[in-house]
Amino acid sequence: MRARDLAQPYASVSTDTDALEAVRLLVEHGLPGLLVADPAGQPFAMLPACDVVRTLLPRYVQEDPVLAAVVDEPHADHLCRALAGRALADRLPMGRPFLPAATPDRTAVELAELMARTRSPLIAVIERDADGPGRFLGVVTAAHLLKRLLQA
Amino acid sequence: MRARDLAQPYASVSTDTDALEAVRLLVEHGLPGLLVADPAGQPFAMLPACDVVRTLLPRYVQEDPVLAAVVDEPHADHLCRALAGRALADRLPMGRPFLPAATPDRTAVELAELMARTRSPLIAVIERDADGPGRFLGVVTAAHLLKRLLQA
Repeated sequence: MRARDLAQPYASVSTDTDALEAVRLLVEHGLPGLLVADPAGQPFAMLPACDVVRTLLPRYVQEDPVLAAVVDEPHADHLCRALAGRALADRLPMGRPFLPAATPDRTAVELAELMARTRSPLIAVIERDADGPGRFLGVVTAAHLLKRLLQA
Repeated sequence: MRARDLAQPYASVSTDTDALEAVRLLVEHGLPGLLVADPAGQPFAMLPACDVVRTLLPRYVQEDPVLAAVVDEPHADHLCRALAGRALADRLPMGRPFLPAATPDRTAVELAELMARTRSPLIAVIERDADGPGRFLGVVTAAHLLKRLLQA
């Protein structure tokens, strides 16, 4: 059982996607996180659900957690308003976001170790070219990896 | 909207639960993580799916990620065998595991900030007593918080 055998198709959003639409996709499909592709369709970032929640937070709360307590209930209830009309890219964590990825020949142990170390419930499987961006084969989720290991 | 309004019942396992059964529960119910209670029924630890995956890893791989590459495919495919007949408690991370928890009066912003900071897709809502262990009211998942914020 290698990463290529475990990779599955996964709904992705683009950095251009409306941020509210991206959150809706996660909620409606019960996804463990968002796979974000760049405008060329190449995987760009993986946002576990807790990082999607982070995109809702005002920057001042992200920078100083103590300030979460000063936001009153009516404002807190309308966190999603900040996303309306904004592209997902505008709300991504600063700097180049993180994309946990494995090559197709990785074993279940290597995938499990990468999930545990990166604390990501999703790993992108990407076949590396000698040059070029590589070919995206799909995603291994923690739930799918555990399911396949239970069956083995 | 406060933590008490957002808390939902959540399937929990006990530190005494067979580790394989705990993994099955997560897979079969599509849970974002495991809520682990102590034998008295009090929440004890929260294991996001990536930490459940970690419980499958041999200790030597947890301690030195490079060693993931030396486990051959047949052994990697049977990671779950290490769990058979073991209590979940035997496989928990060393030291007292982490339980992200909020009091019932926390706002959506405070819950979101806690999820983002602890990188947990699950928060336990616990009413603190002046003395005693507190009363467990339920769990707020990232998916449920996002859903309720989209509707607000």
